[in-house]
Amino acid sequence: MLFMVEMAVNLPPDMPAERAEQIKATEKAYSQQLQREGKWRHIWRVAGLYANVSIFDVKDAQELHDILMELPLYPWMEISVTALCRHPSSIRSDDK
Amino acid sequence: MLFMVEMAVNLPPDMPAERAEQIKATEKAYSQQLQREGKWRHIWRVAGLYANVSIFDVKDAQELHDILMELPLYPWMEISVTALCRHPSSIRSDDK
Amino acid sequence: MLFMVEMAVNLPPDMPAERAEQIKATEKAYSQQLQREGKWRHIWRVAGLYANVSIFDVKDAQELHDILMELPLYPWMEISVTALCRHPSSIRSDDK
Amino acid sequence: MLFMVEMAVNLPPDMPAERAEQIKATEKAYSQQLQREGKWRHIWRVAGLYANVSIFDVKDAQELHDILMELPLYPWMEISVTALCRHPSSIRSDDK
Amino acid sequence: MLFMVEMAVNLPPDMPAERAEQIKATEKAYSQQLQREGKWRHIWRVAGLYANVSIFDVKDAQELHDILMELPLYPWMEISVTALCRHPSSIRSDDK
Amino acid sequence: MLFMVEMAVNLPPDMPAERAEQIKATEKAYSQQLQREGKWRHIWRVAGLYANVSIFDVKDAQELHDILMELPLYPWMEISVTALCRHPSSIRSDDK
Amino acid sequence: MLFMVEMAVNLPPDMPAERAEQIKATEKAYSQQLQREGKWRHIWRVAGLYANVSIFDVKDAQELHDILMELPLYPWMEISVTALCRHPSSIRSDDK
Amino acid sequence: MLFMVEMAVNLPPDMPAERAEQIKATEKAYSQQLQREGKWRHIWRVAGLYANVSIFDVKDAQELHDILMELPLYPWMEISVTALCRHPSSIRSDDK
Amino acid sequence: MLFMVEMAVNLPPDMPAERAEQIKATEKAYSQQLQREGKWRHIWRVAGLYANVSIFDVKDAQELHDILMELPLYPWMEISVTALCRHPSSIRSDDK
Amino acid sequence: MLFMVEMAVNLPPDMPAERAEQIKATEKAYSQQLQREGKWRHIWRVAGLYANVSIFDVKDAQELHDILMELPLYPWMEISVTALCRHPSSIRSDDK
Repeated sequence: MLFMVEMAVNLPPDMPAERAEQIKATEKAYSQQLQREGKWRHIWRVAGLYANVSIFDVKDAQELHDILMELPLYPWMEISVTALCRHPSSIRSDDK
Repeated sequence: MLFMVEMAVNLPPDMPAERAEQIKATEKAYSQQLQREGKWRHIWRVAGLYANVSIFDVKDAQELHDILMELPLYPWMEISVTALCRHPSSIRSDDK
Repeated sequence: MLFMVEMAVNLPPDMPAERAEQIKATEKAYSQQLQREGKWRHIWRVAGLYANVSIFDVKDAQELHDILMELPLYPWMEISVTALCRHPSSIRSDDK
Repeated sequence: MLFMVEMAVNLPPDMPAERAEQIKATEKAYSQQLQREGKWRHIWRVAGLYANVSIFDVKDAQELHDILMELPLYPWMEISVTALCRHPSSIRSDDK
Repeated sequence: MLFMVEMAVNLPPDMPAERAEQIKATEKAYSQQLQREGKWRHIWRVAGLYANVSIFDVKDAQELHDILMELPLYPWMEISVTALCRHPSSIRSDDK
Repeated sequence: MLFMVEMAVNLPPDMPAERAEQIKATEKAYSQQLQREGKWRHIWRVAGLYANVSIFDVKDAQELHDILMELPLYPWMEISVTALCRHPSSIRSDDK
Repeated sequence: MLFMVEMAVNLPPDMPAERAEQIKATEKAYSQQLQREGKWRHIWRVAGLYANVSIFDVKDAQELHDILMELPLYPWMEISVTALCRHPSSIRSDDK
Repeated sequence: MLFMVEMAVNLPPDMPAERAEQIKATEKAYSQQLQREGKWRHIWRVAGLYANVSIFDVKDAQELHDILMELPLYPWMEISVTALCRHPSSIRSDDK
Repeated sequence: MLFMVEMAVNLPPDMPAERAEQIKATEKAYSQQLQREGKWRHIWRVAGLYANVSIFDVKDAQELHDILMELPLYPWMEISVTALCRHPSSIRSDDK
Repeated sequence: MLFMVEMAVNLPPDMPAERAEQIKATEKAYSQQLQREGKWRHIWRVAGLYANVSIFDVKDAQELHDILMELPLYPWMEISVTALCRHPSSIRSDDK
């Protein structure tokens, strides 16, 4: 099942740079692992914002939830979730 | 350049079915032509709504504008546009 | 998979009563058929409004979408969809 | 009487983990006790969010208020309350 | 049980004056009958708007719903419902 | 003159319990004094929220302002004010 | 008592020009009569919009309501009302 | 040129009273000086809120900006600015 | 004086094409005349929408208002106005 | 490509003045360097607010993103981005 997830990150300006970098590095590794597994299918940066638009391909809403809850940046994120399905006009066999 | 475009369609309930079908058929052909050209890269249905989330890959904002203005359903759409760029965590070479 | 769907109906005040009654009767039969099949698991009226809160139990977002698109009142509805999953504190085995 | 209650939790990221765990454990026990008593009839997780959708079956608004005020997580919650009643299309005798 | 109900009326400017007057007269009689029965406990005009704030004292949400659905002006109203309960600081024995 | 005042209280979760209790006690005494004087005519709890809906009967907006500014909980409140007047359908002589 | 009233006018584009002009002329005469009586104390145009910001000086909310309900443009207006009182920093004796 | 400026003040509840009083005193003196100069033409309190509605008469937007930036309470204010012009129905020669 | 004006156009889908074209042609001529006079200093299309962002350089708010009221598309526009002034970091002598 | 970027700055009132001045000075130098390079084409102050409206002329969304992420005030800014394109009515050859 496909979900669009929009994530906006709000780190407090006074978080020590070292801690912020460490969290971001962990986040990046976690995201790339899920991308390699095919579960985090797309991730794009929203131009000008510390935010992204992502497409997840998961078994169900439970798996999506478990993945998002483990995001290292989750405590500083504002998240919105939109369930997607195949569009009848799509010609891509993998955008189901 | 990549753009996320969210489109919601509001056809008046009393539009004759024949006319609605014709507009939708033209829309579908137009969308598929652009998908084949690689400009309308993704289109997903928003579950439960007459709406979609799409990713366009165009030369610039002008080309995006020209494409959207020609959508047969444009007069009945509510549209929002978000400029995207490559996410530093992305591992897909084509999600630039 | 479970989804919460909130539906608000806005019939134009000048719709002929007979037509409104017919649409509502078809809607009721359609809803009850889906309830009997176990797909439309709960439906509650929002007090004071021509609106409901519903819980659907479907295979995936696609099945939800197909069901909602067939609602006879769909053209006059405002709909919002929220994907749900099992709550770790739940003691009901069927609220998965 | 039935009420839908939507709860979103915002714990500050710097709350000591031990304290957070303790509050959540108390919350879970409290919720399950009310579920066993039949007053907290349903609880679902909103996919991707630290939030839930719940259905309460209480004597009146006063009992609902007293229950919610005792939620251990209440000080960090954003809550919305919607009064429900039986839907004329419902076929479940207990969704009154 | 007490509910605050906020009602805003939007009659189309081109509704024939006679029809508007008739609907309003029926509405007034209906409201006053419910006030005499003690179910529509308060009604105040919002200054400057064709809107009111009302307090209903009903058996439960179902009775409130049935009353509001019968409002002659209902098809042209925007309504919001808020469940109330006794305030611990209240000194009025009847504001329960 | 009548005003509806909606008050929502947001005390920080880490305010010492003793201080919170003291402020609330002062608030209660202040509210009850004004109720006895007939100026704070109604106060209801919004079910599920640390919030109230109140009706004030004061000489003018200035008196309302002076009363609200003295609320011990004022610094932690979000307040909205709505001027009311007698509703032509009201049958209560004191809901002027 | 002073009230700020913000009015935005939305005449349908297809209203016959003659009718629109007649309504506006009646509105202007009505407004100027109230200005001469000192009840409509100020009226300013919002730059770029068919809207105004006005200050009324009336006996109470009832008088304000009666005045606004008689506005010839009322059926096409969106109105918001804000109760004002004297500001402690004001040096104008008539801005009470 | 005339501008309506709406200002809402949010002082943190734990600001020492002495500091708050000092800022407010400076603000009052500053406001009254500008009123005497005819630049801050009106100031009204919004009933029930620590907020005001003001009318400024300045040379241009730059002068308005410079004045507002110097408000001692500026760092704790939420401000909105609306450009005004003479209303064709106004009979006051100075509400230009 | 500089103003940013954001305009969004909503022509009804069933407006005869000929009439729409005529209005747009008049609008274009009117806009270009004002651009040549230096009063409509910039106009950009918002990508994907029938909307623009414009910068006006006018004597005062009154002149802006008179210009906007004469826009042939005004009756179908949603407009927002923002007063601008020179930014202290600007290096362009004409962005005053 | 052109983008409109709206930036609002919220520095905490208790930030030491020296630090605030230093950040602002760095911001100004950074902005002016980009203006000289022709990438930050316009910057205007929003009258009355610590906010600006800017027009960027960049190669693509990626370049815009990289520029904005380096703003010294970025951590305290709320930013919105709007992709622009040439308006068919524009007579300025450089407002492409």
